[in-house]
Parts: sequence; C-alpha cells; structure tokens
Amino acid sequence: MGGSVAAALRKRGLASCIVGYDRDAATGERARVLGLIDVLADSPGAAARGADLVMLAVPVGAMPGLMQDIAGTLGSTSIVTDLGSTKADVVAAAALLLGGGFDRFVPAHPIAGRERFGPEHADADLFLGRVVVTTPSPQTSADAIEQVEALWRACGARVERMEVSQHDRVLASVSHLPHLLAFALVAQIAGQPDAQLKLSLAGGGFRDFTRIAASSAVMWRDVALANREALGVELKAYRNLLGELERALESGDADWIEGLFERAGRARRSVPEDAHGA
Amino acid sequence: MGGSVAAALRKRGLASCIVGYDRDAATGERARVLGLIDVLADSPGAAARGADLVMLAVPVGAMPGLMQDIAGTLGSTSIVTDLGSTKADVVAAAALLLGGGFDRFVPAHPIAGRERFGPEHADADLFLGRVVVTTPSPQTSADAIEQVEALWRACGARVERMEVSQHDRVLASVSHLPHLLAFALVAQIAGQPDAQLKLSLAGGGFRDFTRIAASSAVMWRDVALANREALGVELKAYRNLLGELERALESGDADWIEGLFERAGRARRSVPEDAHGA
Repeated sequence: MGGSVAAALRKRGLASCIVGYDRDAATGERARVLGLIDVLADSPGAAARGADLVMLAVPVGAMPGLMQDIAGTLGSTSIVTDLGSTKADVVAAAALLLGGGFDRFVPAHPIAGRERFGPEHADADLFLGRVVVTTPSPQTSADAIEQVEALWRACGARVERMEVSQHDRVLASVSHLPHLLAFALVAQIAGQPDAQLKLSLAGGGFRDFTRIAASSAVMWRDVALANREALGVELKAYRNLLGELERALESGDADWIEGLFERAGRARRSVPEDAHGA
Repeated sequence: MGGSVAAALRKRGLASCIVGYDRDAATGERARVLGLIDVLADSPGAAARGADLVMLAVPVGAMPGLMQDIAGTLGSTSIVTDLGSTKADVVAAAALLLGGGFDRFVPAHPIAGRERFGPEHADADLFLGRVVVTTPSPQTSADAIEQVEALWRACGARVERMEVSQHDRVLASVSHLPHLLAFALVAQIAGQPDAQLKLSLAGGGFRDFTRIAASSAVMWRDVALANREALGVELKAYRNLLGELERALESGDADWIEGLFERAGRARRSVPEDAHGA
C-alpha cells in the first residue's frame, strides 16, 4: 500500500521528492524503476532523515523495529504517520519509541485493503471515496493532524477521526474477524482429502467470501495478534452464535434460522456498494 | 433463477413455448410482460400438463409440495428436472411423490447463485462457464439424463455428474457453510449498538465477504435444513478450528496463526477467478 500512497501523492503533485526504503532490496528497486519513488535509500534512517513527512507502511508487527530505526533521524518538524490496520499497539509503540517525535505522530488507517501486493499493483486512485481513520492523541500537534488529514483528502479519501480503542473495536468486527473467518474456512477445505474437487466446484459466492483469504498471511497474523483483545471478544461471540445455529439446525428450528438470515440480509442490503466497484 | 433459465433457453432457440407459474401472481405476470415466459399458468399442474420438460425452480423446502401438485399431470415422456441447491432431500421427495415419473426425473444444480432475485434480474448468460452438477439415480432414464445435460451445455455450462451424497458434502463445504457464516457475521454486527458506525466503515473486503448474506433468507433456510447433516459436520469442524484460533490468539502463537493463514492463502490463490467476473 506504500506504493499506492506514493503514486497517489505523485499524481496530485503533492510530493516533490519521494524517498523509499524496503527491507527487500529488489522490491525497493522495482518501486524506483516503476517511478513510484525518486530515491531508494539503503536504510530506514537514511530514508527518513530530513523528510517533511515519514510514512510507515509495514505490517503492524514490524512497526516497533522501524520506529526504533528512524527515531534518531527525525527533524524537529518532521511529521510521522502510518498505514497500520490496528492502532492501540502502534500508538503505544510510538509513545515509547519516537521520543519527542511522538507529538508529531499522526496514527492513520486507510480502509482500502487489497489482496495483491507489491509495487506492480500500486494504484494512484486506490483511496478515492475510501475512508481513512485517524486516531490522534490529546498531545498530538494540531498542525500535524491537519497536514496528514489534508493529504488524505487530497488523495480523494474521506477522513474520520476516532478514539484509538473505538477504531480497534470497530475494525475487529468488520475487518479483522472476517479475514480470520475466511482464512479459517479455506484452510479447513484445503486440509480435506477432496480439496481439489471442492475448490473446482466453488461458485462466485465462495470466491467473494474467500477473496480476503488471499491477503498477506504475515500482515494479518500481525493484525490478529496486535488486536487480539477486541478480536477475541468478537470471535467468542461469533463462536457462540455458530453454536446456537448448530443447535437450531439439529432441532430443525426453521423460524429461528430464517429470522437470523432475514436480519442479516436486511443489514447487508443497507450497505452501499463501493463507489469504484472494488 | 427460473427466469434466467427461461431467458437462456429462449436466447438459444431451445424452447418453442415456455409456460410459467409462480406462487406470487404478480411475479408471474412480470415474467410474462418481460417476455421470459409465453404463457402464465394459474396452477403448477396447468403449467406442467403436456410439457416436454418441467423445471422446478423453487426453494428446496417447497419441492415436495410442488411435486405433489404436478405428479398427476406428467405425460409418459415428460422429463422433470430441478435447480435445487441440495440433492438428497429433493431426490427422496421425487422418489416418493413423482410415481412413475421418477425414472425421468433428472436432479440438477447449476452453481450460479446470485443475490438479486426476481424476473427483472433474469440473465440469459448466467450459466456461461458455470458448473451444473447432475445427480441421476441408477434407474434414471439415460435419454432423460442426456437431454437435460445437453440443455445445460447448450446454455454454456459445464456438466459434472456426481453421486447425490457427494454433491451434498461438497456443497456443504464450499457453498452452504460460507452462506451460513456470512449471514451469522452480519447478524452479529447488526445486533450491536454501534452497528451503523461499523457498517459505515466496512471496506471492500467486508463487502465481498458478506455479499452472499444478501441472498434469500427463505431459500438458504431451506438449504441449511435440507442438508443439515453434511452441513452440521462442516460447521462443527469449523467451530473447533475457530476454538483453536482463539487459543492461539490468547497464547500469542504467531507461527501457528501464520501457518494457517499461509495454507489458506496458497489454496485461495489457486482458485481461478470467474470467467465472466461474477
């Protein structure tokens, strides 16, 4: 997603010089050759040094290490922000590791996941019409917040400011749990002796339902662990609901099943389809 | 889906006269006005009388009643087929209720679900590249099987012949369980006090994952109950897997979680996207 941010900023003339770094040197070089970044740095510190804005685009489990690497290189006006899918852990790490830079750290989460990753799939219009949640702390500089939120609006996103804990609870429901459920379903089928036959007969409903199971395993492992408390609450409630469904199936309670499906259908039909069809 | 079959047959010149019946008279009339059917009958028996081919396009729970209604009207060469998502219950009902007509009953299941229903959404090309499973019995007339399978091939589908019990097990995995899981997730969120906020922040992943929760509640209630045995086995296994995930989250077992996600991702990436993007 870092590549898509770079492409979005470039397309709108919002960055005069973009310095990139990737742990995998070949990925970084592809981003440079593709024109997503102007300069490929050979360390996180070298990339961050003197930057007006530093954007941390790594799985949330890798944030603390990255923050340590850049903390000493930040200028007194450098703004730091991130793209992490969880916020409590990232904010806690920033408070601990960014030192004085924490006041200019603006936690952000663009809700625009995708299953394809790597610089080749960068999309300058990925954020059009999407929501970006920011979760600043009371001590976050108002100017830093304003600059980061303005940047996202310029990329076509709608910004929603929220409490850290509220963000993590909401996302546990509508993003982290669905990912976990999709991974689990495909893993269950893949582990069965007739997996090939089953997958060959899967229809469009299955493909839609499991599309997110093609996402990055490392990124979602980190998200699940980082948000394990809120996610655990949702998961437990969900397992209980499945237990009720199991019992309703066994006892043939058609009304209860239809009622559940009907409530779900009404709620789902109230969700607008995506503006640009993703 | 009955409307889509009618449209598909019509477009390919495979039916000279299509007689339709719908329990809801207004729906039947709309199908007639839209040109999907030539004649609107006022009872199932009147629609089936003298037909070369009778296609039963109702939720599986309504099949027995419909079979009773038409059994006495079938000619000695009439072929009967269906579009039901489960097969053991439909075949058992047909054996019990179609009398001599059971030998010319060809159970079929086009794997081409959609969330929008009604004659307005009929699509003559719905079956292009889709799989249609047939599950004939040993006593089913070879000629009847051939005619029904030829019809589906002419509509652009690929036909797979299977045992009844195998069909129901496979579909429990890749279709019935995912529907149930999607309905349950949306119902869970819809029942929470902050449902509106959560749904407003749902991204593309959530929309894909829950698209099938907009399907017909009555149809899927019937499917779940009709296939409750095979579905129960899959659901129990899935609940156990979620329990393991819950424990792995609690103990912070990153390797186990990543392993599960990685196996799922590999399997999911091996599933080809749909030929016509549905």
